[in-house]
Amino acid sequence: MRTQRGFVIPIGGAEKKLRNATILRRFVELCGGAAARIAIVPTASKLDDTGEIHRRAFAAMGVGQIDILHIRDRADAMSAEVVAALGAASGIFMTGGDQLRLSTILGGTEAAEAIRRANARGVHVAGTSAGAAFISEHMICYGRGGPTPRMGMTTLAPGLGLTRLAIVDQHFRERDRIGRLMTALAFNPALIGLGVDEDTAAFIDGDDVLEVVGSGGVTVLDPSGVTQSSMAAARKGGAVGIFGLRLNVLVSGDRFDLHRRVPVLG
Amino acid sequence: MRTQRGFVIPIGGAEKKLRNATILRRFVELCGGAAARIAIVPTASKLDDTGEIHRRAFAAMGVGQIDILHIRDRADAMSAEVVAALGAASGIFMTGGDQLRLSTILGGTEAAEAIRRANARGVHVAGTSAGAAFISEHMICYGRGGPTPRMGMTTLAPGLGLTRLAIVDQHFRERDRIGRLMTALAFNPALIGLGVDEDTAAFIDGDDVLEVVGSGGVTVLDPSGVTQSSMAAARKGGAVGIFGLRLNVLVSGDRFDLHRRVPVLG
Repeated sequence: MRTQRGFVIPIGGAEKKLRNATILRRFVELCGGAAARIAIVPTASKLDDTGEIHRRAFAAMGVGQIDILHIRDRADAMSAEVVAALGAASGIFMTGGDQLRLSTILGGTEAAEAIRRANARGVHVAGTSAGAAFISEHMICYGRGGPTPRMGMTTLAPGLGLTRLAIVDQHFRERDRIGRLMTALAFNPALIGLGVDEDTAAFIDGDDVLEVVGSGGVTVLDPSGVTQSSMAAARKGGAVGIFGLRLNVLVSGDRFDLHRRVPVLG
Repeated sequence: MRTQRGFVIPIGGAEKKLRNATILRRFVELCGGAAARIAIVPTASKLDDTGEIHRRAFAAMGVGQIDILHIRDRADAMSAEVVAALGAASGIFMTGGDQLRLSTILGGTEAAEAIRRANARGVHVAGTSAGAAFISEHMICYGRGGPTPRMGMTTLAPGLGLTRLAIVDQHFRERDRIGRLMTALAFNPALIGLGVDEDTAAFIDGDDVLEVVGSGGVTVLDPSGVTQSSMAAARKGGAVGIFGLRLNVLVSGDRFDLHRRVPVLG
């Protein structure tokens, strides 16, 4: 029943765009190749050329139609033109930048609702870096690096909500973010933590099975067996304990079932 | 279709328990009065008598069967006995204390799932103070008082998830929390903010229409018309701007439709 939903694709940032662009090529292929119509949402970025950089990459792969949606404020995110372009796309791509720009500019707007509806009816939605953080119901806003969870190490907020099963962190290995992802899980050990490395993506299908694509790893922190989190007793800046997290590191081609919470073997 | 779901009832804390106990009486009446079977979840509290205080109040109202579920750790929250008691209840009541105890002890456990399933099939779930904060998908963990939103003023985390439409704050007027509720909305102006005063409750029915019961007010902050949030540009501790919030203050008997985002007049 749920297979109708399009892929939800968090990318860890810094994905290759020309040679060895395995992630973007897989995305383009899913969206229809030459027949694809891809909408680029560069809202996370304050730079003027972010959309254009991605447009060139998609154009080089032969994508037929590419729309850069310049959504710079909430009025843009309510415009009929933007909503129509999102409604016509076979794939939607959110660039990097700052995820708080995405949540504050898109949150609760017609554009956000158009992306949610599109994904629900089968359109694939990818986000890289900040775009990846924003993709889930619970979003990591910002935080500090380091291996040990600490109270105050990260802040969560509502995201776009394409998946409620996982919290996504990105630039994972490169920025040493396992501590902040554990901190996020220590608040409430109900959701899976997905730590996505640079040039790496988790392609989550309509049945919520993810497949890793790219040159790095996806760290899957599964709290199903957690016996204790000390977050309620922690002090500001203090270390937070968490017992019994199950840690999986997946590489290219590996799959993980987010519902059953098991790697798919073989 | 959605009317099957039981009421979701955030209470602002310090609800009257004997005389003028309009909130608890309304809850007991909904749950079946003398025929009710109420499960009390005192997990938020570290005090031994919290469950007993509520048991006495419900017993004085003639409730037929009252179970205090002593869920003190995640192992308790996985026990068959607890899950069975939650499954047999016609009403579930979560006490005050610290909402991080609720999320860290119940989050992702069989007990949390049992409460969600019960509510989905028509069982009424109330929470007071910390119990009210935990009731929604996005939970305010802690924060500071004051009228002006500031970055870092509050921290959000996943809650129990009985409603995705609103973020709940409690002891609202008494602890001067409008600033922190606005801070929560400024991250992503997608959800409604419900600021619930002490001895006041929002009875949210299966169609997501809430009715206010009690001696105080429920402040409904509706971000539908927000034109700007400056959260992405704010610095740690700095003031955060937000334009165009619609503010409604509802008192006893007033109703508000959380889907259509309008007060129900007359």
